Amino acid sequence: MPYYIGDVIKESKKLVIRTPENFKKTGIDVKIKTRVDGVDPKKGSLFLSDGTSLPYDVLVMATGAEAIRLDIPGRDLEGVFVFRDLTDALKIKSYLNEKGCRKAVLIGGGFIVMEMCEALRNLGLETTVMIRGTRPVVRWDAEFTKMIVEELGKNNVLFLPETKPVAIEKGKDSHFVLRTDKGDVAADVILMGVGIRHNVDLAQSAGLALGESGAIKVDFRQRTSREGVYAVGDCCEVFHKVAGRWVYFPLGDIANKQGRVAGQNIGGYPAEFPGIVGAQAFKVFHLEVAATGLTEEEAAKYGFQPVSALIWGLPVGRPMAKGEKLGVKLVGDKTTGKLLGGQCIGEKGAVQRVSSLSVALWAGLSVDEVGYLDLPYAPPFGGAWDAIHIAAQSLRGKM
Amino acid sequence: MPYYIGDVIKESKKLVIRTPENFKKTGIDVKIKTRVDGVDPKKGSLFLSDGTSLPYDVLVMATGAEAIRLDIPGRDLEGVFVFRDLTDALKIKSYLNEKGCRKAVLIGGGFIVMEMCEALRNLGLETTVMIRGTRPVVRWDAEFTKMIVEELGKNNVLFLPETKPVAIEKGKDSHFVLRTDKGDVAADVILMGVGIRHNVDLAQSAGLALGESGAIKVDFRQRTSREGVYAVGDCCEVFHKVAGRWVYFPLGDIANKQGRVAGQNIGGYPAEFPGIVGAQAFKVFHLEVAATGLTEEEAAKYGFQPVSALIWGLPVGRPMAKGEKLGVKLVGDKTTGKLLGGQCIGEKGAVQRVSSLSVALWAGLSVDEVGYLDLPYAPPFGGAWDAIHIAAQSLRGKM
Repeated sequence: MPYYIGDVIKESKKLVIRTPENFKKTGIDVKIKTRVDGVDPKKGSLFLSDGTSLPYDVLVMATGAEAIRLDIPGRDLEGVFVFRDLTDALKIKSYLNEKGCRKAVLIGGGFIVMEMCEALRNLGLETTVMIRGTRPVVRWDAEFTKMIVEELGKNNVLFLPETKPVAIEKGKDSHFVLRTDKGDVAADVILMGVGIRHNVDLAQSAGLALGESGAIKVDFRQRTSREGVYAVGDCCEVFHKVAGRWVYFPLGDIANKQGRVAGQNIGGYPAEFPGIVGAQAFKVFHLEVAATGLTEEEAAKYGFQPVSALIWGLPVGRPMAKGEKLGVKLVGDKTTGKLLGGQCIGEKGAVQRVSSLSVALWAGLSVDEVGYLDLPYAPPFGGAWDAIHIAAQSLRGKM
Repeated sequence: MPYYIGDVIKESKKLVIRTPENFKKTGIDVKIKTRVDGVDPKKGSLFLSDGTSLPYDVLVMATGAEAIRLDIPGRDLEGVFVFRDLTDALKIKSYLNEKGCRKAVLIGGGFIVMEMCEALRNLGLETTVMIRGTRPVVRWDAEFTKMIVEELGKNNVLFLPETKPVAIEKGKDSHFVLRTDKGDVAADVILMGVGIRHNVDLAQSAGLALGESGAIKVDFRQRTSREGVYAVGDCCEVFHKVAGRWVYFPLGDIANKQGRVAGQNIGGYPAEFPGIVGAQAFKVFHLEVAATGLTEEEAAKYGFQPVSALIWGLPVGRPMAKGEKLGVKLVGDKTTGKLLGGQCIGEKGAVQRVSSLSVALWAGLSVDEVGYLDLPYAPPFGGAWDAIHIAAQSLRGKM
């Protein structure tokens, strides 16, 4: 679906909606259902699918990414979806509404799949998550993913690890039969969340340099290798402050920031996007799950000497605790003493901790300092020694 | 009550309890009901209330602070309390249990008073808060304190501003009549939360230097001006990293950290306490209230050029919002561009933001950087542009 501008710009009572007419009033000409077939960056011109061409002084590539579909028979049947953009969501919703679905199967174990579990269970669907590996959201520690799998179970989501989809066929009692290496699974709707791929074909055809990750190479002002051509969002790279290198990290909040920076530069107010630290979060039923910075594996790959500590603390002061748990794992660098990453899980307070740890990573704080950070203390929100402090001091002991 | 060691160390089914016997097993000799009447720092000796003296190599002053009682007639009647330590809490609790109380009056508008409102309402008491000024918790912006006063009202707490207590007398229908400059108020229990005062008499008699604030002067290792004498907690000063000076900031989490640092130094593992940024939080019914760094007034006093911005954002992504509000106020320095302080209020997410802002202050980040911080984004926890970003960008526009 790449290169379509405003595919989802349509009239609706429930949705947004900026129509091309709305935009025109503000002096912006929005072309919908118009594919950009090519770019001539030397001339500054786009070749459009309607046969015309469009000159530009400044071009912003925001071609995003597209969801990967498993290469198995039946992948394109009606009722088999990816979930990437608003149109996917609308299609899934009307399918569920109109086709009398009872059983949903999610293929993949990323955090968007985890979020989808909650949405599907709330709609009353029998929900199954199927992954090839042994555990979901592998960016998180095995102790934490164990808790996530338990949370899926508590909410009646069937979790099928080490299961490989082989084919999708029309079913009898259910819309589909999903053939796997472990046997058949019935499904009325199948959702594939098996990753995304940056849309860089147009960029490549325009001769824009790509980075090591394969996404469009940009600088801190979001400029590509071509004069007058910018790139933002899921089609380009971003600077990772902890890793100290350009990476591919396609998340919505980052895309927003890059768009703002590009806009400022184009508008004549020079701005630099300082980069990211890898902050991310999701909610799965009653659990907050969040992470930031590098995992031990990433840290080792980037030449650090990672050491880690994992503790179970409390999101409230001890006298107020009613059985809540807050898991905190920190990764530090033995050579420099710096914090390299953190991750948290719990019914509450996990995002709060990872947010604070993200700022600590942004500023390059040492594990020592994290152990003494001045955080807003009150018993409804944590202990006098916050779980962050305890984790940092535990990690400090190992470094 | 100062200088009593272990006043609250007693056997109880519900409470802690470390008895002196417990301590002895670990080689620690705990003297209870023993007042330290004097110190001879040259000899290294304490004069105790039982007439004996006790030699020391290292002395830690942890004399804390005591709650101020208003100097009005009736201040010492049974049923008139301050709330400072565990014994106060136990006394209040048994008074409420045994004396058939219906009406509680809280004098003062600090954040511990705000917390007490919730505790008293939960016990079913008619609760009144009386302050001399126009608004409670003045460290927070007037827009925020307005929201707090509304929250008190929603929870049936009567708020009496600009009211000065004059005398407490025994009552007929209620235990007390509290005479004020605005008329009489009936009360069965009266709680004074009008501030604390550091206990430094013993320190002064021992010739320890005091700081500008009047609390004991210490260095980053918690050493006082006397060799071998340390001080920690509410009796001593602490370094404020944003203000760049030593201040009096008596909070429990800080005391904990100072104790740890002193202990490490005494034990032969040199450690420094890096200081604080002024982080604090409280909960009043359904509101989280938190602040960090400097207010505009403090910033001006310390020679900064403060500029501020206050925005109302959301603690969740816009599509998930159900009327929640999240207020964020930031203060920056026009000269350096640095963040100087922040405060937040809301049903949820306020402490999270102030926690992150506290780390930003700790690291000395600029307002510019705060506007682009990489924070863990997911709609259940905030927008792609977090309220922090929006506030920082708003402040940036004024700088």
